[in-house]
Amino acid sequence: MDLERPDLSAIHLLSPAGFRAGAVRARIKSSRALDVVLLVCDRPASAAAMFTSNKVVAAPIQIARVNVAGGRLRGIVVNSGNANACTGRRGLADARRMCAAAARAIGCTPREILPASTGIIGHHLPMPRLLTGIAAAGRQLGTSAARAAAFADAILTTDTRRKTAGAAINIGRHRALLAGVCKGSGMIGPRLTAARTLQPRHATMLAFLTTDADVPSALLRQLLNEAVQDSFNAVTVDDHASTNDCVVVLASGRSGVQIRPGPSARAFAEALQDVCLSLAKQIAADGEGATRVVRVEVCEARNQADARTIARAIANSPLVKCAMHGCDPNWGRIVSAAGMCDAAFDPDRARLTLQAVTVFAGGQPKRFDAAGLSRRMNAKQVDVVLSCGLGSARAACWTCDLSAEYVRINADYHT
Amino acid sequence: MDLERPDLSAIHLLSPAGFRAGAVRARIKSSRALDVVLLVCDRPASAAAMFTSNKVVAAPIQIARVNVAGGRLRGIVVNSGNANACTGRRGLADARRMCAAAARAIGCTPREILPASTGIIGHHLPMPRLLTGIAAAGRQLGTSAARAAAFADAILTTDTRRKTAGAAINIGRHRALLAGVCKGSGMIGPRLTAARTLQPRHATMLAFLTTDADVPSALLRQLLNEAVQDSFNAVTVDDHASTNDCVVVLASGRSGVQIRPGPSARAFAEALQDVCLSLAKQIAADGEGATRVVRVEVCEARNQADARTIARAIANSPLVKCAMHGCDPNWGRIVSAAGMCDAAFDPDRARLTLQAVTVFAGGQPKRFDAAGLSRRMNAKQVDVVLSCGLGSARAACWTCDLSAEYVRINADYHT
Repeated sequence: MDLERPDLSAIHLLSPAGFRAGAVRARIKSSRALDVVLLVCDRPASAAAMFTSNKVVAAPIQIARVNVAGGRLRGIVVNSGNANACTGRRGLADARRMCAAAARAIGCTPREILPASTGIIGHHLPMPRLLTGIAAAGRQLGTSAARAAAFADAILTTDTRRKTAGAAINIGRHRALLAGVCKGSGMIGPRLTAARTLQPRHATMLAFLTTDADVPSALLRQLLNEAVQDSFNAVTVDDHASTNDCVVVLASGRSGVQIRPGPSARAFAEALQDVCLSLAKQIAADGEGATRVVRVEVCEARNQADARTIARAIANSPLVKCAMHGCDPNWGRIVSAAGMCDAAFDPDRARLTLQAVTVFAGGQPKRFDAAGLSRRMNAKQVDVVLSCGLGSARAACWTCDLSAEYVRINADYHT
Repeated sequence: MDLERPDLSAIHLLSPAGFRAGAVRARIKSSRALDVVLLVCDRPASAAAMFTSNKVVAAPIQIARVNVAGGRLRGIVVNSGNANACTGRRGLADARRMCAAAARAIGCTPREILPASTGIIGHHLPMPRLLTGIAAAGRQLGTSAARAAAFADAILTTDTRRKTAGAAINIGRHRALLAGVCKGSGMIGPRLTAARTLQPRHATMLAFLTTDADVPSALLRQLLNEAVQDSFNAVTVDDHASTNDCVVVLASGRSGVQIRPGPSARAFAEALQDVCLSLAKQIAADGEGATRVVRVEVCEARNQADARTIARAIANSPLVKCAMHGCDPNWGRIVSAAGMCDAAFDPDRARLTLQAVTVFAGGQPKRFDAAGLSRRMNAKQVDVVLSCGLGSARAACWTCDLSAEYVRINADYHT
């Protein structure tokens, strides 16, 4: 790899030194696709995670919160096809048995394993098949790009495509790698919170990141928290927070590149933010039934919280999302969404552009070529920029259009 | 009419003594349906109103807030097809001209007129056609059931049916009548607020009520505020609060029945709540693309605010609404929606029923016949009852399913 211009697209989940993975079909999913994975670090990794803030917390997340609290993990075990949520004591016991099986496969203690699940809520896991699958995954651990791709595929549910991202962190003449995979398509509206502050809200998205940088777990936790706010916590498909949302990063330290408060932390933070934002955008782009991505930027807001609240209100409006689907420059829906949320907003000071065309400013409609703008909205990405004229804070939020296909997918998922 | 058992279905907007109405086609709507109406009280009526709390307030609502503040009105002028929102100073001037034209037609001052509009945001009203229409409506004022029906039809936009309700208030041997009409199908998620407390949120719904009871305006305002909370403020189609929401009640006093604090106020309040709830349910049932109504009841909540918050979170979840469309007893979406909102909730103490079938209790899934329950959900109304086990407060919320037809209607409204 060229130190100056690394090929980021070639970086996969197992590119950072020290990690192996295995993925198998355990028939948890009815589709018989890959559905059980193990990710293993050769030695105890520095670890940080953020979880759903929904007050309905899936069993694996309850276990994961405890296991990651010490800041060190050896591995991650994940199944797709069943969320193991709303499953009571039996669900908790099942999640513990997942960890025990993974620990046996790796050769560590169950407390060194982080479990995660995604799929239907309210069904007990098919434990015999799952345990057999975990053991099988443990027998085929490897480091190849194919293994990394299989891992990325196995965590998907209604997703239509694999989601991966990579980055390189150059510190002097040394380089560390950072990589991530994620899943998420429906039930997306994460409000992830740091592992130790149990201050519940939610959507099922899972993201797993690896790095061979040497990062103390307290610093890793802080940097992950910062990176998540404007990435995963800024993506919404249907604003329905899940019981299973989880983002985890493991740092093996194997590159020898030390990340400490100061310039190295800033370089690592930048790479972490890039990877998280890339993954989050891929979730928006692959939202259930989506035909395009919508980027909502709110600037000149009174403060950061208001900017995020307004961006989210616009991105969550079914009326706005339907208009985006129809390439319809019906901007009144955007302005009214901004006005209905709990944030300072004054239409007389606001200015709204769609695909860089000003449609509303100073409380008045602006003349524009509606047919021309509609054609410009028929794109892979639509940019909505609302300037509030009240301050200097800004935030961006990523979502997708709302199509009849979303309804089809979700009117018929269970039965 | 039989004093003991009045035929409520025969009561229309112009049944209460003292009111006349006119409805005309002024070509504000492209469909050329009726679109301009006048409602007139023969003498100054006691009046109360509640308006959108969106911070983006349509021009007619800005004028209406001022005009109703004194508690007396002579009339109401309404157009459909154009919301006159986000239209700046010209929009305000246009709304004032609407009032002036209505005042000329009736023979009163513009300050005695409440204006309301519904339709597309961000377009200036076609004033020559509108003013001609108002004058024409003034020339054909009448009291017939046909006039009342024309009024109810003329305020509709994407609604598919007329929405009306009536009630009788018996005080001793005397009787007063109460009647109402409303419109609302999309952009429905009202948070109506009392006229004088400008604490903005929103959806376009309009409701106009008449009564021939004699009710002081302060009492009328209080009773309307109470009636709205569990009716119009408890209905949601897409949770998108509008710039134009408005509920107005006019009391002519012509029946001679005096409503004062005490038993008469309680009798009037009950009738007012019945009429408001009936109208609100009709909005939910006629939600854009709706095939069924969903009633979400939350009981045993810690307090009233929590009960309302949880009910609304469930009713607003696109995932829940899609499941209702598909007759899919995917109850995990309901429980997770309860857990993601800002209210006390503990899944281990909760109990959920769908069509009276218990599907989740004590943190555990309950066995049920999924195919049988799905058949029971294929009904005009689905009842969701979530007992929180945390207190004694309750609230109900009304919504509809989310269908592909909603997307079709809203992806293609503007252009």
